[in-house]
Amino acid sequence: MAAEIVNPRSDSDTGQDGGAEPLDSFDPAFALHRGGKMAVQATVPVRDKDDLSLAYTPGVAKVCSAIAEQPELVHDYTWKSSVVAVVTDGTAVLGLGDIGPEASLPVMEGKAILFKQFGGVDAVPIALDCTGVDEIVETVVRLAPSFGGVNLEDISAPRCFEIERKLQERLDIPIFHDDQHGTAVVTLAALRNAARLSGREIGQLRAVISGAGAAGVAIAKMLVGAGIGDVALADRKGIISADRTDLTDVKREVAGFTNKAGISGSLEDALSGADVFIGVSGGTVAESAVASMAKGAFVFAMANPNPEVHPEVAHKYAAVVATGRSDFPNQINNVLAFPGIFAGALQVRASRITEGMKIAAAEALASVVGDDLAADYVIPSPFDERVAPAVTAAVAAAARAEGVARR
Amino acid sequence: MAAEIVNPRSDSDTGQDGGAEPLDSFDPAFALHRGGKMAVQATVPVRDKDDLSLAYTPGVAKVCSAIAEQPELVHDYTWKSSVVAVVTDGTAVLGLGDIGPEASLPVMEGKAILFKQFGGVDAVPIALDCTGVDEIVETVVRLAPSFGGVNLEDISAPRCFEIERKLQERLDIPIFHDDQHGTAVVTLAALRNAARLSGREIGQLRAVISGAGAAGVAIAKMLVGAGIGDVALADRKGIISADRTDLTDVKREVAGFTNKAGISGSLEDALSGADVFIGVSGGTVAESAVASMAKGAFVFAMANPNPEVHPEVAHKYAAVVATGRSDFPNQINNVLAFPGIFAGALQVRASRITEGMKIAAAEALASVVGDDLAADYVIPSPFDERVAPAVTAAVAAAARAEGVARR
Repeated sequence: MAAEIVNPRSDSDTGQDGGAEPLDSFDPAFALHRGGKMAVQATVPVRDKDDLSLAYTPGVAKVCSAIAEQPELVHDYTWKSSVVAVVTDGTAVLGLGDIGPEASLPVMEGKAILFKQFGGVDAVPIALDCTGVDEIVETVVRLAPSFGGVNLEDISAPRCFEIERKLQERLDIPIFHDDQHGTAVVTLAALRNAARLSGREIGQLRAVISGAGAAGVAIAKMLVGAGIGDVALADRKGIISADRTDLTDVKREVAGFTNKAGISGSLEDALSGADVFIGVSGGTVAESAVASMAKGAFVFAMANPNPEVHPEVAHKYAAVVATGRSDFPNQINNVLAFPGIFAGALQVRASRITEGMKIAAAEALASVVGDDLAADYVIPSPFDERVAPAVTAAVAAAARAEGVARR
Repeated sequence: MAAEIVNPRSDSDTGQDGGAEPLDSFDPAFALHRGGKMAVQATVPVRDKDDLSLAYTPGVAKVCSAIAEQPELVHDYTWKSSVVAVVTDGTAVLGLGDIGPEASLPVMEGKAILFKQFGGVDAVPIALDCTGVDEIVETVVRLAPSFGGVNLEDISAPRCFEIERKLQERLDIPIFHDDQHGTAVVTLAALRNAARLSGREIGQLRAVISGAGAAGVAIAKMLVGAGIGDVALADRKGIISADRTDLTDVKREVAGFTNKAGISGSLEDALSGADVFIGVSGGTVAESAVASMAKGAFVFAMANPNPEVHPEVAHKYAAVVATGRSDFPNQINNVLAFPGIFAGALQVRASRITEGMKIAAAEALASVVGDDLAADYVIPSPFDERVAPAVTAAVAAAARAEGVARR
């Protein structure tokens, strides 16, 4: 079995189509998926009529009445504050693209069990049979009473930006598009540690991001928020700059806060002299372009299964190399972030997930590496048991500090 | 702790308001409900990167692609075919009435754990923040890819009838309003056994139902479908008959297939000479009216916590007495039906739950009593372990016989 891990952060602008494969029931993935990967369990006994009279009627009526009187009690006496909806419309699933809601379910179930395994958060797959922005928003608003938070997943750009924004405006529970922010948090953590390793400040660095979909745009925003020197994004037509006339609204917004250097032209043009390459595109980058980067560069080639630059090539020129694969060092994997981010937000009943909470998550994640920091260890393993507690605590504290905690 | 069990089959027309109670954290129901009553669990291991590469990426991509190619595989390789959405809008919760979606969650969680405990069916509470028929229908249609069936719960009449009908028209998975059909199935089972005990055919019996909400209307339809001699429904204004000018559409329909005897007047008028009383109203019935029933009558006084006729009073006149309470013999409890009905329907991937499947469920439930049949044992205990397997098998077989099974 191959060991690489593909993160669900495919960029719909540039996502490659992995192509459908015939059903091979001998493949161990099919055997494992038989009947699904998750179940519901009761956490209270229902063995006899006394149990039933407490957990169901008539005992339950008192709890319902109490919540009707004091609505905030729903957080104490139901599973609302421990359960997250993993919502998708199936339009940007892994590198497979728009495969529809039912075919996306194995990924959503996988996400749900990662929430549980790594963050102790209950999660329920909700794959929607609609793709309009307002339809999705309205549906999630109607579902919201049942959930403590909403993880948006594998919804294609640029709809994902508008859906997230509208939901955040209408609901007072955390709404988090993991393909954007989870990826950005882990990338920032790796970048902070790479800078620390090489004795540089983030403010000194100029980064170039390949891919202007959900992940690329979110990484750019987060790096700018964290004080990076400069960052430029490239889509398939080249560097995004204000003088381009073919930009979507989101890319026009990107042009406004990136590319202070005013670079135009191709991705390769931008890489000349750059300090950081971040690939979330699925494309490839010529070796000569990597060679043209500044001395001691960082190359985060996160496309899966084929990094934009093969790590062996990148190592010829770069000081730190990261990928999205588990079979190379420094794997940028969203599972390092989303379980702890939601666990921390739910713990303090945060009304939303702020920029400060995401930056706190990145810093906590970076700090787990501690004194073991090395070129092949700028980010912890997904199975490092220190990760989720550190992220959870940092996010909860940041929520309190930012005034969005409700307990 | 009181031992009575209140079924969520309150009739919104006549449901009594149980009233909100102050939060008494010393009540054992609050201690038990702390943090909710359910959780999600992974059914596959996620211990290391090899596990992750099968359960999540890259292994999961093959499963997604296979489902995209052959949509029916979603039933084999996700939890869709074992999970039911328990959908409410919180408008008719127990006897508490319209307490809203969040206050209804303890009941929906209770229902979910009963699905698991008694039927092995995973269930997820979905309490909706909307009450319009078309809003609810559209929302459930959009959610449907994630679920193998939908249990509608505690939605007030008459909207519940239209919501169920529209969903059944639009979706090809089981849609089942338990407050209607679960109650009707268990009532029919008890009635069949009561008739068997007294050597009578259902076709010889005239029944009077008090309460023309979700449960009453469904019981009437089911008894007529099962061949009862005659049935009349009473709402708060008296017996429903075609000459009344104040009927809703649903009650007008009821008038068309009930009350062959052409009775008008009060509930008490109709009880004179009747063979069966079925109470799902929460009102009270005068002892003199019970005394006026035919010899050897059956009295099913199912209101909770206060039966329409106290069992001790009913026993003075009736051959068989049933209630909704667990502290008297013959408890009519929906949990006898819904777990097995969904388990059977999901087992054969039924596209809907037909009248034949419901009647098969009632017959299977009645048959569990077998040779132990007695006046104080016309229906099994909710904790009789033979019940769910018997109902499951009967429903699955009926689905195959009626051509709605898909495997």
